[in-house]
Amino acid sequence: MTPDPALDLVLQRLIDVPRELVWEVWTKPEHVSKWFTPAPWTVTDCEIDLRPGGIFRTTMRSPEGLEFPNVGCYLEVVPYERLVFTDALLPGYRPSANPFMTAIVTIEARGLQTLYTATALHRDEEARKRHEEMGFHQGWGTALDQLVAYAKQL
Amino acid sequence: MTPDPALDLVLQRLIDVPRELVWEVWTKPEHVSKWFTPAPWTVTDCEIDLRPGGIFRTTMRSPEGLEFPNVGCYLEVVPYERLVFTDALLPGYRPSANPFMTAIVTIEARGLQTLYTATALHRDEEARKRHEEMGFHQGWGTALDQLVAYAKQL
Repeated sequence: MTPDPALDLVLQRLIDVPRELVWEVWTKPEHVSKWFTPAPWTVTDCEIDLRPGGIFRTTMRSPEGLEFPNVGCYLEVVPYERLVFTDALLPGYRPSANPFMTAIVTIEARGLQTLYTATALHRDEEARKRHEEMGFHQGWGTALDQLVAYAKQL
Repeated sequence: MTPDPALDLVLQRLIDVPRELVWEVWTKPEHVSKWFTPAPWTVTDCEIDLRPGGIFRTTMRSPEGLEFPNVGCYLEVVPYERLVFTDALLPGYRPSANPFMTAIVTIEARGLQTLYTATALHRDEEARKRHEEMGFHQGWGTALDQLVAYAKQL
């Protein structure tokens, strides 16, 4: 799929972590909770059922101590290559009450490095703009910095 | 997945059509257009890209000649067993503007017959009720009668 600049947001970067390790830290709850939210936000809970239709749930805690649960559903799980999930569907593919985005994460080996591409798909320009204003580029960029730092010390 | 009576609608019937043929008439545009809408409604156009993320699009025409396009996306395609699609996502998994339901069609061989189960998943009771009032049971039942009659003369 080619991203649509009006509707989609893309973060792409060559990172200094092998592809297999990127996959690991994206797909196991004990890892996700270590890097997924830009500090000082934290992940207090994470549930992963890694198959199409399976749950991907995180609870994010703000610096003030407020908790924000996010529940979504995996759509594609291609080990070491591609992970797709959405909050437009709940586990088991039930439509959700507050759909916002679908995320596509692709990873490609580049020697010992990895070409990392995260794409957020939105239903309209308004949702894309809102996500941009919420800080997509900085937020997902900082989370990726944290992923790299965390993975390197594993 | 076990259907939730508060949120889901289920049509289950043993039909006198072999499983392979049920799959065929569900997955090829030239067949879908022959049975998919209860007469006197018709399907004037159908597009199928039979893979997860691929398009499932039909245009239904009312007896008065009004056309209603429906665009959705396949989620699971398991030949001769299971077909899942939703209008909560557009092709390529982009969230849609007007999500309503996910449909799960499962077929199981019972000798030369087929146990046919179609489940519609909704996000809340209101959507389930609305679908019921739109005539889910009669509509999907009549469409299934048409599927059986059409398949038998192939």
